[in-house]
Amino acid sequence: MDSAVALAEAREAGFETRALTVRYGQRHVCELEAAGRVARALGAAQHRVVELDLAGLASSALTGASEVPKDRPVESMPRGVPSTYVPARNTILLALALAWAESLEARDLYLGVNAVDYSGYPDCRPEFLEAFERLAAVATAAGAEHGARFRVHAPLLRLTKREIVLRAVELGVDLSLTHTCYDPIAEGDALIACGRCDACRLRLEGFRQAGRADPLRYASR
Amino acid sequence: MDSAVALAEAREAGFETRALTVRYGQRHVCELEAAGRVARALGAAQHRVVELDLAGLASSALTGASEVPKDRPVESMPRGVPSTYVPARNTILLALALAWAESLEARDLYLGVNAVDYSGYPDCRPEFLEAFERLAAVATAAGAEHGARFRVHAPLLRLTKREIVLRAVELGVDLSLTHTCYDPIAEGDALIACGRCDACRLRLEGFRQAGRADPLRYASR
Repeated sequence: MDSAVALAEAREAGFETRALTVRYGQRHVCELEAAGRVARALGAAQHRVVELDLAGLASSALTGASEVPKDRPVESMPRGVPSTYVPARNTILLALALAWAESLEARDLYLGVNAVDYSGYPDCRPEFLEAFERLAAVATAAGAEHGARFRVHAPLLRLTKREIVLRAVELGVDLSLTHTCYDPIAEGDALIACGRCDACRLRLEGFRQAGRADPLRYASR
Repeated sequence: MDSAVALAEAREAGFETRALTVRYGQRHVCELEAAGRVARALGAAQHRVVELDLAGLASSALTGASEVPKDRPVESMPRGVPSTYVPARNTILLALALAWAESLEARDLYLGVNAVDYSGYPDCRPEFLEAFERLAAVATAAGAEHGARFRVHAPLLRLTKREIVLRAVELGVDLSLTHTCYDPIAEGDALIACGRCDACRLRLEGFRQAGRADPLRYASR
């Protein structure tokens, strides 16, 4: 959902967009299929999936090292770094996006990170994004030879989940195409959202606060 | 050769070492086999190869987008960014190393980059390494929660190729195990160094200036 809204914001700002998905060994592979559907629906000129086997490098509940927490009420989710933190994940994602951007002579990177609610991820903070922009200026030929500045846009950074839902509606994002669940459940041929992991609970709470119905199907709770 | 000496320096400094190789679509795949031999010979506790298909993201002569330049005398190699520059390559390598380091609770990254000679790579400069250290401090849970500082060591940064050869000899690095060529040539079952690309020519010049014989086999020139 967050990535979809970030892509819609890039389009709204007038950019031709290209979407990058990294398959890094996360449990929730249906996120990848959802990314393709969202990229097409929002008119991205290209959607590229990069394979990267992070499982052996970075231990995390998201890459299978431990259980995804379930049934925690939003208000009691721990405030620190969650077990679904993947070491240096956004650094890796942005590094790959930077490589592609420099090859395309693009300068603007959009990322759906969010520093509000109960995220607690260190690489979703403004100081991380600023440090990455400073790095990009010295890491690239474009920066070193031509003084190019890469910008990391994080239009959702200070939005609550409620505000993200409302902004998605404003921008015409079809939220039925998105995928959020950390640990989806097989039901017939489909994988459907568990409704119990932190990501599902934050999403559902966002829809509730926005006074909107979530178009996704959830496993019966 | 440079990575081997960097690894030997880490061992010399008293660290238990683990070696990371990224298979990013470079032409010179025998570099990967050489990396395994070097890691074993230098007593690394682990050698990990991460697959990453960069070919579609980052265009470069090293990933097959254009010809590797040949037969340029060392003194006439262009001073700017060479065609073998891979966009954001070292940013990606360090990001992956950072993920592994954080998972291992390690804080020291060693990288065989070198800013001397005719390299011209923007991501081999001290300002790049410093910007990455600043990024790592805010990008990681270790940095954000515990104030951990990751250090990027580049012990070869200011050495000439001649000095690197001499340092390798001092540290007991078996340089016959290393691989340098950008475009090796099949000879019987083996792939041997071309002796003509910039990397071969810089290496050979380093050995010549150090008054040492290069133990590698080269294609007859």
